[in-house]
Amino acid sequence: MTLEQRPAPLPEASRTVFFVSDGTGITAETFGHSVLTQFDLRFRQVRLPFIDTLDKAYEAVRKINEAAIADGQRPIVFSTLVKTELSEVIQRAHAMHMDLIQTFVAPLEQELGVKSTHTIGRSHNIVDSEEYKNRIEAINFSLAHDDGQSHKNLSSADVILVGVSRSGKTPTSLYLAMQYGIKAANYPLIPDDFERGKLPSALYSFKNKIFGLSITPERLSEIRNERRAGSKYASIENCRYEVNEAEVMMKREGIRWLSSTTKSIEEISTTILQEIKPNRREY
Amino acid sequence: MTLEQRPAPLPEASRTVFFVSDGTGITAETFGHSVLTQFDLRFRQVRLPFIDTLDKAYEAVRKINEAAIADGQRPIVFSTLVKTELSEVIQRAHAMHMDLIQTFVAPLEQELGVKSTHTIGRSHNIVDSEEYKNRIEAINFSLAHDDGQSHKNLSSADVILVGVSRSGKTPTSLYLAMQYGIKAANYPLIPDDFERGKLPSALYSFKNKIFGLSITPERLSEIRNERRAGSKYASIENCRYEVNEAEVMMKREGIRWLSSTTKSIEEISTTILQEIKPNRREY
Repeated sequence: MTLEQRPAPLPEASRTVFFVSDGTGITAETFGHSVLTQFDLRFRQVRLPFIDTLDKAYEAVRKINEAAIADGQRPIVFSTLVKTELSEVIQRAHAMHMDLIQTFVAPLEQELGVKSTHTIGRSHNIVDSEEYKNRIEAINFSLAHDDGQSHKNLSSADVILVGVSRSGKTPTSLYLAMQYGIKAANYPLIPDDFERGKLPSALYSFKNKIFGLSITPERLSEIRNERRAGSKYASIENCRYEVNEAEVMMKREGIRWLSSTTKSIEEISTTILQEIKPNRREY
Repeated sequence: MTLEQRPAPLPEASRTVFFVSDGTGITAETFGHSVLTQFDLRFRQVRLPFIDTLDKAYEAVRKINEAAIADGQRPIVFSTLVKTELSEVIQRAHAMHMDLIQTFVAPLEQELGVKSTHTIGRSHNIVDSEEYKNRIEAINFSLAHDDGQSHKNLSSADVILVGVSRSGKTPTSLYLAMQYGIKAANYPLIPDDFERGKLPSALYSFKNKIFGLSITPERLSEIRNERRAGSKYASIENCRYEVNEAEVMMKREGIRWLSSTTKSIEEISTTILQEIKPNRREY
C-alpha cells in the first residue's frame, strides 16, 4: 500500500461520550457504539452506571460538565434512565442529550394505550427469572461439553458445533449460551475422524442439530502458530489437509456449515440460530 | 399469598415486535428489550437479521404485514439500518416504526459537523480489530484460568475472582472476557484455605486485582444441591461454614467483594469494573 492509498488516521479524541444508566449501562453503551461507529471520529468514552438516586445524578452532571470544560466542547450523553426525575437532572448538564428511554417510551405508551411502569433496573432485575436460570444452566452445559469433553446429555443440547481444532467453536458456544441461553456443545473433528472417514459416532443420532464451522487454512495456521509455533499441527500443509477433509466430510454428511474466517462470534451465532432454529426462539 | 394479592397475569401476546437490522440485530434487540420491559405486556418477538439488500428488505416488509393481519394490530418495528434506501423500504410496512439509527444519526451529524458514513455492518465488521482479538484472547485466558486450573500468567490477568465453589465466579469471568476483553482468572476458596487461614499462596502478589464474590448460604446450598443433592458439600451447615470463613478471610485480607445472591452477571461485572478499574477502560 502506498502512502497515498492509506486512509487518513482518525483525528484525536476531542469529545467525550457518556453512557448514563440507572442499571449497568450496557444497553446505552451497545446502542451508543453502534451509532458512533457511523462517524469517522474518535471519542473518549465514559460509562456512568447505577445512577439511581438524585445525589448520583447530580454527581454525574458534575462529571459531564467537567468534561465539557476540559474538552472545550459539549459532551454527548446517551442515557437510559427510566425515572423522569433522574432524567430531568441529567438534562441540566451542558451536553448533547440522547435520551433513549424518553424518546421511545412516550410514543409507545400512546401506541399501546398503557402507561409504562418506570421501574428502575427492570431489564436487569432478572436473577430469579426462568430466562436467567436458563442462561446460567446453558453456560455450565457449554463448558461441560467443550471440545468433546462429554458425551453425556448430548440429547439435551440445542446445538452441536463441529469443526477442526481452533476454528472458533469454543467462543461461539459460550456466546450462544451467555447471550441466548442456548445449550451449545462442541466437538472437534480430528485426523482420526478423517482417516475413518466418519463423524464421531456419538454425533450420528443428533445430525439435525449439528452445525459446522470452517476457516481458511491460512488463517487457521496463523491462529495455531500463536499457540504452538512451528509445530506440524500449525503447519500450512496440515491445516490445508484438515480443513479440506473436514469440509468434504460436512458436505457428504449434509451438515450445514459456514466459514468463520471473517465473521465475528456475534455474526456466527446469529447465522447458526437462523439455520438451526432451536425450539425456544422464533426467527 | 392469597388469591387477591397475586399480581394479575400478563395478557396474552397480541402484538408482534420485529427487530430489523443489516447486521446481527443484537443492538436493536438489546435496546428494544430494555424499552419493552417498561410495559406490563407480552409481545411475540421476531428478529430479522442481515437485511442488507432491497430484496431482503421487501421480504421483511411482507413478514411484518403478515403479522399485522394475523394479529389484527400493527406490529412494532425496532430497526437499525444504516442505508437510507433500506430504511425507506421498511418504513412502508404497516407498523409502528422505531428507527434507532435515523432518529439519532441526523442530530449527531449536525452536532459533530460531519456526515455519517452509512456503512453497513460497520459495528460488527470487527474481526480484524485489536479489540476483537483482545476479546478472543481474553476468552481463552479466562477458560484456561477457570477454577484455579493454572497459576501461569496470573500476572497478565486484569482481574482475579475469588470465592467459594458455586458463588458465580465462572460465568462472571466469561462475561467479563466476552463483553469487555477483560482477562479474568478465577480461584476457588476451599476448606484447605480456611484451615490454613490464608489465601492460596499464588494470589498474594496480585492482591490489587483480586475481587471476591460471596453469596447467602441458603442460595449456595440450593445451587449446590442441584449438582450434588444431599451431599455434605451442599448441606446448609457446610455452606454456612464456608461462606462465613470466606467472608472473614476477604475482610482480613482487605479484598473488595460483593454478594452475588441477587445480582445478574451483568451487574456483578459492571461493579467489578468500577472497583478494579482495569487500565484499558475508563469508568
